[in-house]
Formats: sequence, C-alpha cells, structure tokens
Amino acid sequence: MSFIKQYQRVRKEKDSIICVGLDPALPEQRRSGVIKKQYPGDEADIILQYCMETVDAVADNCCAIKINTQYALFALSYNKMDCLNQLIHSHGLISILDHKLGDIGSSNESAIYWIKKCGFDAFTFSPFAGNIRETVEAAHAKDLGVITLDLMSNPEAEGFQKKTRFNETPLFWRIAEDVKQAGGDGVVVGSTNHIRDVDISKIRKLIGDERLMLFPGVGAQGGDVKKILESAGESVLINIGRNIIYSDDPSSTSAEYNKRIRLK
Amino acid sequence: MSFIKQYQRVRKEKDSIICVGLDPALPEQRRSGVIKKQYPGDEADIILQYCMETVDAVADNCCAIKINTQYALFALSYNKMDCLNQLIHSHGLISILDHKLGDIGSSNESAIYWIKKCGFDAFTFSPFAGNIRETVEAAHAKDLGVITLDLMSNPEAEGFQKKTRFNETPLFWRIAEDVKQAGGDGVVVGSTNHIRDVDISKIRKLIGDERLMLFPGVGAQGGDVKKILESAGESVLINIGRNIIYSDDPSSTSAEYNKRIRLK
Repeated sequence: MSFIKQYQRVRKEKDSIICVGLDPALPEQRRSGVIKKQYPGDEADIILQYCMETVDAVADNCCAIKINTQYALFALSYNKMDCLNQLIHSHGLISILDHKLGDIGSSNESAIYWIKKCGFDAFTFSPFAGNIRETVEAAHAKDLGVITLDLMSNPEAEGFQKKTRFNETPLFWRIAEDVKQAGGDGVVVGSTNHIRDVDISKIRKLIGDERLMLFPGVGAQGGDVKKILESAGESVLINIGRNIIYSDDPSSTSAEYNKRIRLK
Repeated sequence: MSFIKQYQRVRKEKDSIICVGLDPALPEQRRSGVIKKQYPGDEADIILQYCMETVDAVADNCCAIKINTQYALFALSYNKMDCLNQLIHSHGLISILDHKLGDIGSSNESAIYWIKKCGFDAFTFSPFAGNIRETVEAAHAKDLGVITLDLMSNPEAEGFQKKTRFNETPLFWRIAEDVKQAGGDGVVVGSTNHIRDVDISKIRKLIGDERLMLFPGVGAQGGDVKKILESAGESVLINIGRNIIYSDDPSSTSAEYNKRIRLK
C-alpha cells in the first residue's frame, strides 16, 4: 500500500489529523522541554523508555508519530528504533522520521536502507540539492513515503525559500511542482511568521488534493491552526510536539488537541 | 582552539590536504562499494570494526576523516561513535561529521549537543532554511566547526543553488557571503559536472583566504583535482571516499593519493 493510502486509512480509523512530535531531550541538554521522569539505564535506555511511554499515552488521540533525527538518532540506533516503531504500529499509527534527508545519490540510498530497517513508514526530505524524483523513486522501491520540505516558518526561510527565484518563480512553488511531478507523497509547510493563508492554498493547488501537507510548529511554536484548516484541504497532518510530550499528562493533553483540531 | 586553527595545525603536522570519507555500507545494502571483510558481531559491530581498521590504515596519509551520517549514524549511536573519534584523535587527525544538518532552532541545538558528545570537531550544515549565523553561534559555543554546503556537483544542484537568484544574486554567492559574515568555518563545494574554476575562485574570494573549502566527490565521483588546486587557494580539504576505503589496500591507496594531491 502506498504511504498516502496508508495515511488516508489511518486518518479515518483514528478519526484524527494530529501528529505527535517526539523530540526527546535529556535534562543535561537544555533548560526546558526535557525528559523529567527518572528511568533506569543509560541515555539510550532513558530516551527509548520515555518515547515508548509517550506513544502509549497519546496513541488513542492521534494519527501519526513523528520522530526527529536530531534528538533521537544519535542515541537510538536501528534496533532500538525498530522496537519503538513496532510499538507505534501496534497502536495502528503511522511513523514518520523527521530526518530532513538532503544528501545525494548513494548516501541518500544508504539513509533509505536504514530508515526502512528502523521500521518507519515515511521520512522528510530537504530539496536543497534538488534530487526530488531520484529520492522518491528510491524510497517508493522500499514502500517508504517522502515528505519534502517546501516552506518553513523560521524568519530566514522567507528569504531562502519564498523570495528566492527559480526561473522567475518563488522557490517553494517550484518545489511543490517538482513534488507533484515526481510522485512525491507530500510536503512540509510551516504555519507561522511569514506564511500566509494564500501561500498554503497555493501549495495545495500545486500539489493536488491527495498529497499530504504536514504542518510542524503548532503548539509550542504557536502555529495558526485556523489558517491551516481553512486553506490546506483535507489531506493534512498537524504536528504538536512539546506542548503534548512535555505536558504533565500527555494523554489528556493530546485528547484535548485532538478534540479541538478537526477537519470541518 | 577554533576549528580553523586546528585544521591549519593538523594540515601542517600531517603535511596533507586529504580527507578520507568513511561511507561504511553493508554487503546486503547494495551491490558494490561495500564492506567485504568478515567481522564478528552484529551490524553495528561490523561497521565500527571496519571504520576503526580503515582509520588505522590511512592515518599516516591524510589530514582528516569525514564520516557520513547516512551510513553510520543509524548503526552507531554516540558511545560507538565516541570510541571511533577517540581513535581518530589518537592519530592526530580531524574528525568531521558529514551530517548536512538542516533543521531549525532547538532541533539544531539538539544535534549540536549530540555531535559534541560523539566527539567530532566539526559538522556539515545545509542552509536550505537559512539560519547560518544561529547555527555557527550554537556550534562555536561548544567548540565545534560548521562547514556549510554551498555548491554541490549533482546536476540538479545547478538549478537549485546556481541558477536560483536571491536578490538577483546566485544563491551560492549569497550563501558564501553569509558564511563569512556569520563567522562560519568553511564551505562544501563540488568539483565536477557544472562547477567551473571560476565558480570555485569566486567562492574563495567571497569567503576569504582562511576559511576551509571542503571538496567531496574526488575519486569515485571523478572530481577535477587540478581545477581545485589552481582555483581554491590553500585552505582546502580534498575528500576521497570509496576509492580509498574500498580498495584492496587502503593504506597504500591513501599514500598514493596523498603523494599526488598536494598544494603547490
């Protein structure tokens, strides 16, 4: 089954468009937004147990889990990651690696080999060097979905992705077109700062109705949910990270978000 | 000591501008360019032993080791990576993580936390979302160097990085300027396909004489060494991957490259 079909089935079964973002930070790593509970074992054990407990807590109130490489992958190698993904799938959820893969050729293929081995369903891809079609083909050969970064919300992304011109076209328009033409599975689009409703609806028009739009940055980063729900169409995932995973009660917090953020 | 100073010292001590690229692929991963020798243990053990043997073999004939995340990091978590980096440093070499980090804010900071914990000296950064200054500042606070992707050699990068305009300027010029202004440590620049000697000398002019230019893609990918040596100045590292690490005798192959590729 293609990733898009899998997403559509799970969205219906779970009746949710919420994606819970796992950014597991150790207490020694930074001041706030860290794992508070004590777990036995080394750093890898702590992170794995925390992630597994969080998945169990939120599983009834979401559609997907997104794990960020920059937090997890240095600590968890493939066997621990596979263990976590088996739990995610046992709850009937989708698992996305927020990897922002952006290498070339055989290095991308190597990443795809390992992402599959870890048990993920899809990964995010950064098109700084192009290669969207090549990456989508290599990923689809292993039944993995590719969600390509298109327009990010941080202030400098406005310069690099929106004001930058590719043959007179804003770069993010061109990337959205490329994703459609390459048969990609979706795009990552921010929802705050410089990103307007017309940007979101333009991307939807360029990629077509079926492809996934993944919105990070809702919750702690203050993303505008109303703007998304009115401009992005139905094939969406709305990611909430810190506000759920570092809340005192991830289960009830995820339930509240899931009740509040719904397709019309 | 800053990363640039460390590089200059090691280049002089080792009398070499060769960087050996470790892309450790398992035999089940692809057909050619794989680890041929048998080692005991699981995939992580195999990759670690292979990397350590290769480092020992090439240590006298290079200045730096570059490890690509897309091959290594899924298998080796931080404790194994730290073990490998201790070996690299015991030989007096520099260790670079070819990570192409390209996330935002706290995710980048998390990556920097782990990259330091793994024992690397510097990492590569992808500026698709901008954030060059922010990343350089966070990395320097932990004494890590940042080498920013500027112009890649794959055919599509010509569209995305060279033909794309940022305020009427080719994107890769703008990135080179940003790296200088942000106090970044260097840039990654290809040397094949669409990349000409004037592109390389333009980048050198924009970043100044001291910053490192790291050239991947020499060797298996057929990079043009003459073009680099005549256009890039002295502060360079020339990466050779597969042609050394998968040769029958990495020690003598690296010695040959090190004899052939020298600053005038």
